[in-house]
Amino acid sequence: MRATTIHGPRDIRVSEVPDPTIQAPTDAIVKVVAGCVCGSDLWPYRGENPITPGDTIGHECVGIVEEVGAAVTSFKPGDFVVVPFDHCDNTCPHCRFGAQNGCVNLGFTVSGQAEYARVTQADGSLVATDGVPDASLLPSVLTISDVMPTGWHAAVSAGVRRGGTAVVVGDGAVGLCGVLAARVLGAETIVAMSRHEPRQQIARAFGATHVVAERGDAGVEAIKEITGGVGADAVLECVGTDEAMRSAFQMARPGSTVGFVGVPHGVELPVRRMFQGNIGLAGGMAPTRKYMPELLAMVLDGSIEPGLVFDLTLPLDEVAEGYRAMDERRAVKVLIEP
Amino acid sequence: MRATTIHGPRDIRVSEVPDPTIQAPTDAIVKVVAGCVCGSDLWPYRGENPITPGDTIGHECVGIVEEVGAAVTSFKPGDFVVVPFDHCDNTCPHCRFGAQNGCVNLGFTVSGQAEYARVTQADGSLVATDGVPDASLLPSVLTISDVMPTGWHAAVSAGVRRGGTAVVVGDGAVGLCGVLAARVLGAETIVAMSRHEPRQQIARAFGATHVVAERGDAGVEAIKEITGGVGADAVLECVGTDEAMRSAFQMARPGSTVGFVGVPHGVELPVRRMFQGNIGLAGGMAPTRKYMPELLAMVLDGSIEPGLVFDLTLPLDEVAEGYRAMDERRAVKVLIEP
Repeated sequence: MRATTIHGPRDIRVSEVPDPTIQAPTDAIVKVVAGCVCGSDLWPYRGENPITPGDTIGHECVGIVEEVGAAVTSFKPGDFVVVPFDHCDNTCPHCRFGAQNGCVNLGFTVSGQAEYARVTQADGSLVATDGVPDASLLPSVLTISDVMPTGWHAAVSAGVRRGGTAVVVGDGAVGLCGVLAARVLGAETIVAMSRHEPRQQIARAFGATHVVAERGDAGVEAIKEITGGVGADAVLECVGTDEAMRSAFQMARPGSTVGFVGVPHGVELPVRRMFQGNIGLAGGMAPTRKYMPELLAMVLDGSIEPGLVFDLTLPLDEVAEGYRAMDERRAVKVLIEP
Repeated sequence: MRATTIHGPRDIRVSEVPDPTIQAPTDAIVKVVAGCVCGSDLWPYRGENPITPGDTIGHECVGIVEEVGAAVTSFKPGDFVVVPFDHCDNTCPHCRFGAQNGCVNLGFTVSGQAEYARVTQADGSLVATDGVPDASLLPSVLTISDVMPTGWHAAVSAGVRRGGTAVVVGDGAVGLCGVLAARVLGAETIVAMSRHEPRQQIARAFGATHVVAERGDAGVEAIKEITGGVGADAVLECVGTDEAMRSAFQMARPGSTVGFVGVPHGVELPVRRMFQGNIGLAGGMAPTRKYMPELLAMVLDGSIEPGLVFDLTLPLDEVAEGYRAMDERRAVKVLIEP
């Protein structure tokens, strides 16, 4: 099949690789209808994470079940499914505790930007729609694979409450979905930290009541002003850098929680401030499957449209341009059609 | 008045110092009936925290109101009161949010091991009993000044749930109160990490179902075994060292929370493990006043007896021996009678 592969920093190609196959009776193979590029794909793209040259890349996709293993009972070829980036059996003690990210049979999508993807623990992982979704809904359905549940996880972990104030640090697609999540969860004041006009627009469409372009101390100062000196009831950290995390903790009011979903790179947590202020940290890699049914239902009934984060659609052959566009912040998030 | 003062590492004296006086109309002066030595007093005692030689030390006490400032309306001379170590107005936005530790008028008791103590924000801070408590209740009432609310805060922050498993790291008086809190909050399996026989006995009296003497990897292994490989539903970190914190995160199951109340010294939080496992951190300096009414009521109706943590009572003149006894782990917690 044709698949996106990574060969070094900023070296993304489309290569012919072996088709994925059923390797365990719990596996399924999905023919990808749409995949996309994740902000976290940019870490290896920029050389910040180690890679094995020639490996496939891409972990978000939706598609049609092509083949299932002998033990898969809930899905059959032809079903349209959303594939969570993190696969789980959804029955182990960790899954039952709501920590599907820690499933004893945890797996990951490794060829979401390709013609086919293998899903481990298909029965536990996949969520099907009733037929193929309308093309207009497809981008939003695709976000349920990762970016929307991840933004949602930031908001839930930060304890966003009805009537409260939520600040979202990071204006990537995850941060924008965090804004949307905060709105759905009833936050009254929602601040998007963003200096990019197109992203500010999406943030406002998603429910941001304030946009703050400043960063660092000036950004913290702006939040203090918006909150009457108190600080935010909930802060969503959707970047993963030390600077973003530090700002998040400075914006958070005593007794609140920072919900973090940006993969931490070089982050040193300010434990003294956390202690003195009683500012907690919660979140991490999203237990995607936990949130999928609820979020997919909201997409299908039109109450949320997270697909607005896609501002560029490219055929698989041009996936390298998709990475470039996101790296250079010319695009928020790129949808890939195999 | 006679007060405990610190002059250098392991140099604790009883000195004649000026009586505390009303400095703001919201102040009260309390004649100390009982004070005590806190585990956190041992940090400066051991030279781990900077001090100003000659400063008074001690932040836990109960006593009788001696004098009140002009603005104090809820208390009058003669009232028996519990003094939280952290004073708050209990009306500011942070207090109303349940983060009394972050009160805009935050203050601290600085002469709890002395004849008199000044309480700032008396109306917000103090909680009175109906008359002087019976002598047999006094030690337990004294714990409401700090150690019991701190252990309680660890348990609440860790999200201890009815029927769940709670592990308490640290067998100081705070850790022991954490065991008691976990029992009151309904944990079914309560593991006290303790290698000291007298502390193990108190832990069992407080509700520990298991005692684990091992530390480090062996301690983590023991918790894995007790929890069938899953890890603990809630971990209370009541020490404040890097080793204790690391162990706590290794014992905690994915999706759970470490509740921390030990003042962090040299702690580097394991952010990658927190991210991958979705193990949160919550807690910090206790919002003592928030919990005081509830905990005091439990003490007065006999449903809890946290005063069992006191295994040595000394007159103020012998306070230095109290520090020595706690430093050498000959005593769990020392009650001081002025």
